[in-house]
Amino acid sequence: MTDDEDRLARVALTWLAEPGTRSVHRLVGQWGAGDALDLLLDGGAPDEQLRAAVAARLGAGNPRAVAAEALSRADRLGARLVVPRDDEWPRQVGDLHRLVLPVADRKVDRETAPPLCFWVRGGWPLAEALDRSVAVVGARAATGYGVHVATEIGYGLADRQWTVVSGGAFGIDSAAHRGALSAGGVTVAVLACGVDRPYPMGNTALFDRIADTGLLVSEWLPGSEPLRPRFLIRNRVIAAGTRGSVLVEASARSGATQTMRRALAIERQAMVVPGPVTSAMSVGAHELLREYPKARLVTGIAHVLEEVGRIGADLAEPARGPHRPTDLLDDEAALIRESLPRRGTIGVDALAARAGVDVRTALRKLSLLEELALVVRRPDGYALAQPPARRAGGA
Amino acid sequence: MTDDEDRLARVALTWLAEPGTRSVHRLVGQWGAGDALDLLLDGGAPDEQLRAAVAARLGAGNPRAVAAEALSRADRLGARLVVPRDDEWPRQVGDLHRLVLPVADRKVDRETAPPLCFWVRGGWPLAEALDRSVAVVGARAATGYGVHVATEIGYGLADRQWTVVSGGAFGIDSAAHRGALSAGGVTVAVLACGVDRPYPMGNTALFDRIADTGLLVSEWLPGSEPLRPRFLIRNRVIAAGTRGSVLVEASARSGATQTMRRALAIERQAMVVPGPVTSAMSVGAHELLREYPKARLVTGIAHVLEEVGRIGADLAEPARGPHRPTDLLDDEAALIRESLPRRGTIGVDALAARAGVDVRTALRKLSLLEELALVVRRPDGYALAQPPARRAGGA
Repeated sequence: MTDDEDRLARVALTWLAEPGTRSVHRLVGQWGAGDALDLLLDGGAPDEQLRAAVAARLGAGNPRAVAAEALSRADRLGARLVVPRDDEWPRQVGDLHRLVLPVADRKVDRETAPPLCFWVRGGWPLAEALDRSVAVVGARAATGYGVHVATEIGYGLADRQWTVVSGGAFGIDSAAHRGALSAGGVTVAVLACGVDRPYPMGNTALFDRIADTGLLVSEWLPGSEPLRPRFLIRNRVIAAGTRGSVLVEASARSGATQTMRRALAIERQAMVVPGPVTSAMSVGAHELLREYPKARLVTGIAHVLEEVGRIGADLAEPARGPHRPTDLLDDEAALIRESLPRRGTIGVDALAARAGVDVRTALRKLSLLEELALVVRRPDGYALAQPPARRAGGA
Repeated sequence: MTDDEDRLARVALTWLAEPGTRSVHRLVGQWGAGDALDLLLDGGAPDEQLRAAVAARLGAGNPRAVAAEALSRADRLGARLVVPRDDEWPRQVGDLHRLVLPVADRKVDRETAPPLCFWVRGGWPLAEALDRSVAVVGARAATGYGVHVATEIGYGLADRQWTVVSGGAFGIDSAAHRGALSAGGVTVAVLACGVDRPYPMGNTALFDRIADTGLLVSEWLPGSEPLRPRFLIRNRVIAAGTRGSVLVEASARSGATQTMRRALAIERQAMVVPGPVTSAMSVGAHELLREYPKARLVTGIAHVLEEVGRIGADLAEPARGPHRPTDLLDDEAALIRESLPRRGTIGVDALAARAGVDVRTALRKLSLLEELALVVRRPDGYALAQPPARRAGGA
């Protein structure tokens, strides 16, 4: 089989059956795309459901002719087809072989085989763009809080030469892309429809900017419509194509949490940004953190880099409050300081008794406190130093 | 030794050395409180530091006389002393025996022995009040968000006959108490100063209300000042006296996170409410969740009850979105519905081809969709049903 025949057959197969269909992927692995296609066209699908689906699709056209038309259409609009034998094929999506979801009642949760091919718009080689990449996913109906956080994370990733990957939706997806674009970084939108068919329409300008400096990617033929099940089928690619996924805001029933479940199932880093418990848009995020011990709570770009960064690099500092002179005090010095009266002075004997330390210790700690300007010595004893005035003209 | 002598000696010992001092607690366990006191008074403290502390304190008065004065003062103000041989002694604080913190650089992190006695103001027997109790702790400088959440949790606990336990600070502590009070429940303030000495002063009215229907509790003698190290010493009692602790808002350097570390160290439930990552008041909460896999993210009273409730009772429903008719659809029915045009009608053959199913299946699923009022049959084919109008007068 020639290279061209393989490409044509892969396109025809994704038109005959939705991407991710396990039985189709198995046939391609066994016989090659061309023979697998012929087998299906001869009514030789291994299961009833696939046989029926193929028969129904055949009523709408000849698969090889549809594929050829799609390839020439892609050519006209500057898109290309990427298949596994190409150098730019992102091999990590092969991990979808072993994606098994704990609960798989729905077809989209079972049919999670690796893609047969990708349609790509944009200048970057696909594998290179996805090599150091992180997905940022979340709610369409994001709040101002979610949009802010997603933009910051998108910016921060791009700023550190990580590629941002997301869908094409309003809300978190768009915010992540915009953040990456504003840092001059690479961002990749993985679509659930043709790469020539921006959905939602309101994001047309954003898609054009992404295609200019990053990539638009889809498994579906140009012209394909964004049918609802396709978003969940697409999500497995976002999970598998990246080093990890960050969830920023999700309601209780959210496709974005499905992306996270897929990331967890193939042992990619699953990172979740918490939010106010009073917000419906954080319910899905909190449920994920409660349900999956492996899902990691992250509060910003530093934590994200720590999770996906190479070992030993990109480690976030644990959060600390500002350093204060009192941080330097040992227990006894702190106790001495606490035992000083708020106002006025106190003699060293009375102070030692109050603090429960001996006089020698009290004197030693008092000189430390003096050095740190926390205590002042006066003719009649020791007193607390006044804290520095907060503002000019203050006490 | 008589009961009265034991009580007097325990008070004298807490005046001589701060509560929680392990060597003192060991001596009491070995010799009884009276003999342990005599040993210390004779200069027989087992370590240099304790010997020096005792010697320094002796300059301020005779311990047995101080203790007798404290007991009669308590009597006058309607407070009582509770010791381990009393029926109302909360035995769970004995778990502090085994409290070992992973990082214990500071004295307050090492000296975490069980209390020798409690001063109590209020009508409830202490053990009974603390039997079904949950601590709610957090920042003094709480935000409106934190105050709201703490009030709700305090209310919800009290409403389900759980006792709320907290400190006496502004912010989260006060909000939790107020929530419990407004539900007519029992709330307990564990103080780091004398029970006759409200701190902060601004909470005087709140303390009086708590003493009326709940309890004010302290390890320190009436009249004792709230020195800073005492708050951390006190926190071990909040952690050990309750079934679990809920943290609502904490900055990076917060005493409340120390309470949580103590709760974790003695295997009490440690529950943490997340918040906006943009808020400095949630930094400590998020760090705890990141650092301790056993710390449990909770978003409200239902989760809290699930953690502390008896097995099989009080289990929270997982968060779910509202039920929709489309939830009832199987994959094929959903696909059929998605394949219908937004406007106008479509014939069954064209629809089957579009959806990739055979015509018989399409017809079967279409009748299901009709039953659910999601699809309507028209003379010229099938059409999507219009969604119900959102508001009166709508489309």
